[in-house]
Amino acid sequence: MTLIVQKYGGTSVGSVERIQAVAERVLASHRAGQQVVVVVSAMSGETDRLLQLARAMDSRPSPRELDTLLSTGEQVTIALLSMALQARGQAAISFTGGQVPITTDSAHNKARIEHIEASRIRNALASGAVVIVAGFQGVDGQGNITTLGRGGSDTTAVALAAALRADECQIYTDVDGIYTTDPRVEPRARRLDRITFEEMLEMASLGAKVLQTRSVEFAMNYRVPVRVLSSFTDGPGTLVTEEENAMEAPRVSGIAFSRNEAKVTVSGVPDRPGIAHAILGPISAANINVDVILQNVSAAGRTDFTFTVERGDFDRTMEILRGVAEQLQAEGVRGDTGIAKVSAVGVGMRSHAGIAASMFAALSKENINIQMISTSEIKISVVIDEKYLELAVRTLHEAFGLERGDTP
Amino acid sequence: MTLIVQKYGGTSVGSVERIQAVAERVLASHRAGQQVVVVVSAMSGETDRLLQLARAMDSRPSPRELDTLLSTGEQVTIALLSMALQARGQAAISFTGGQVPITTDSAHNKARIEHIEASRIRNALASGAVVIVAGFQGVDGQGNITTLGRGGSDTTAVALAAALRADECQIYTDVDGIYTTDPRVEPRARRLDRITFEEMLEMASLGAKVLQTRSVEFAMNYRVPVRVLSSFTDGPGTLVTEEENAMEAPRVSGIAFSRNEAKVTVSGVPDRPGIAHAILGPISAANINVDVILQNVSAAGRTDFTFTVERGDFDRTMEILRGVAEQLQAEGVRGDTGIAKVSAVGVGMRSHAGIAASMFAALSKENINIQMISTSEIKISVVIDEKYLELAVRTLHEAFGLERGDTP
Repeated sequence: MTLIVQKYGGTSVGSVERIQAVAERVLASHRAGQQVVVVVSAMSGETDRLLQLARAMDSRPSPRELDTLLSTGEQVTIALLSMALQARGQAAISFTGGQVPITTDSAHNKARIEHIEASRIRNALASGAVVIVAGFQGVDGQGNITTLGRGGSDTTAVALAAALRADECQIYTDVDGIYTTDPRVEPRARRLDRITFEEMLEMASLGAKVLQTRSVEFAMNYRVPVRVLSSFTDGPGTLVTEEENAMEAPRVSGIAFSRNEAKVTVSGVPDRPGIAHAILGPISAANINVDVILQNVSAAGRTDFTFTVERGDFDRTMEILRGVAEQLQAEGVRGDTGIAKVSAVGVGMRSHAGIAASMFAALSKENINIQMISTSEIKISVVIDEKYLELAVRTLHEAFGLERGDTP
Repeated sequence: MTLIVQKYGGTSVGSVERIQAVAERVLASHRAGQQVVVVVSAMSGETDRLLQLARAMDSRPSPRELDTLLSTGEQVTIALLSMALQARGQAAISFTGGQVPITTDSAHNKARIEHIEASRIRNALASGAVVIVAGFQGVDGQGNITTLGRGGSDTTAVALAAALRADECQIYTDVDGIYTTDPRVEPRARRLDRITFEEMLEMASLGAKVLQTRSVEFAMNYRVPVRVLSSFTDGPGTLVTEEENAMEAPRVSGIAFSRNEAKVTVSGVPDRPGIAHAILGPISAANINVDVILQNVSAAGRTDFTFTVERGDFDRTMEILRGVAEQLQAEGVRGDTGIAKVSAVGVGMRSHAGIAASMFAALSKENINIQMISTSEIKISVVIDEKYLELAVRTLHEAFGLERGDTP
């Protein structure tokens, strides 16, 4: 018998009517002969409401108590969905994270799953029930309630699918799959039938926010096929899975982009060994993630050192760098928040030369200046002036024939 | 070191500001050198909000899922109160019923506490923390969340006080103690400094709804001194405790009353053995509680059989009795919802003769007709026409000198 794990996010369970619609969808899967485990988030708005209450009590609420508070959001949803199924004559049972149990470490607000005991779920499934599990939460070895952090429900679903050796993990969301790029920027963007885990990781971390990065890593490590589907419309969605035959894969699968970038430059740095560490060490110590890094060719013993950070970290980064520049006797620090990053992603790149060249040529033809470049085995990213972002996305989407699904 | 359990109901924790006021009150107790365990209910309105969501899913929601749903109400409050204390520099830790654990049977929605494991709370107290426990909830042997039913937070508090051998269990509510009668009916009603468990049981079950009957029984069985206090004003409240010296107790401690009564009469019943069982058996089988019972002296081999039930059970009772009357070949069934019950309560009655006589004389003087009488060791109840209720309460309050605290 097929066993599937379905996950419905906050928007999909955001009202009484939507929970009932989810119940209908779950019921259809069960009637089609599948065993179904459902993972749900808190009703949309609930987590924010609880956070607001917490902040009214304490500007920096204790992580343990915050987890106790926030975990009630999913607990409400599991009970309601279970009731909605029972009202339709379908046996159903809900489990909190602690009831499964989903055991995590004790890192409140960002706990990691250590073990899932599957027997209670297996017994309930064997009895013919639909099993509903609270996403985003677990319990540590001392019985304290933990949460996996925002978006953690995806991780719960994938981890459950892995523990139960499910045939598929279906992530229901408000889009009907993974697209070659954002349809709001390029209306000819096309839904992909399949995408590899590696591509999905690059797409997700580059700003195509459909699946949480952690959940994709989890799925890749445990080889859990993940399908992204719409909870509002029917359709096959996009299957995220292992690479089957790279030779036949298209060169580029999608164009990802991010506006959430800022660029900083320490200029006129004395060019000596250890300079990168002297600059990036304090940034890393402040828990700021660095993305693209560029060090200019040295001239007259001095060099410029440039890198990008998330835009929310820009002010703190500049502050730290001013101190660093003084210590290093650098000439100065410059910053620019008016940039964006555009990336071509595809496992097919590995076996196709010249992708970078095609990319640069296409951008150049539209007079889009490339400020920084970063490459990996399956992606090429460029940093450009933010005002060219939409044009760049459409240009590259066309250049790689993505609207037609070419596999040249 | 003194150990106290404090319980705050839904109104006392009904808003951010009120939870902060509770935190101040708890803090004052802790600073006075007491170890404090706090039991809280859901914020007022929250349980009703959740019930409404449940009913939108299923007109008769599963008891297990309902408990999972409703228990989130108290879980929110414990986390918020814990945060409010921590924001004031006071170490605090919250526990759900399942985390203590408070083990119950599996009777969802009306579970009974079977065992409280006190070690986790004791350890937290020993470390200097205030411990906050979710009222109303527990966990059964299979890890399912259970609730004790409405008002169950009082029971949680008393049970915790018993398990911890606390010096006192303080129930904070919206009144500042137990009164000789309802001050809305008799403005000269006086707050009692002390009352015995037995008197409290009679007062509570007769309609003075300050403490849940079950929690008083629990306190009596485990000899836990309970103090009823206001969460909004300071004051000594009323101590509910064991009888110390009945000889010095006043004859009557208070006048309780209830409008929630209805009277039914099966008339012209053939007077033969087993008639009471033939009439009351089907009523009891329908889970309807019978209160005062009266069987008239037989005349011509026939008798009238009268008893009272809760007003909400009146229609069902009449329906059942019509069937019973036909079977018994009784003459007919009559009902009256326009009645009320007034009771004088006091352990002093045991050692003072003539209380009943004084009571009947006082009512007679005001031309209040007594329809039924029921007595126990420490209470005398009369059923009267509802329209005389307030007059009867004031008359008896005065007759027994309750406004002065006489001990004649």
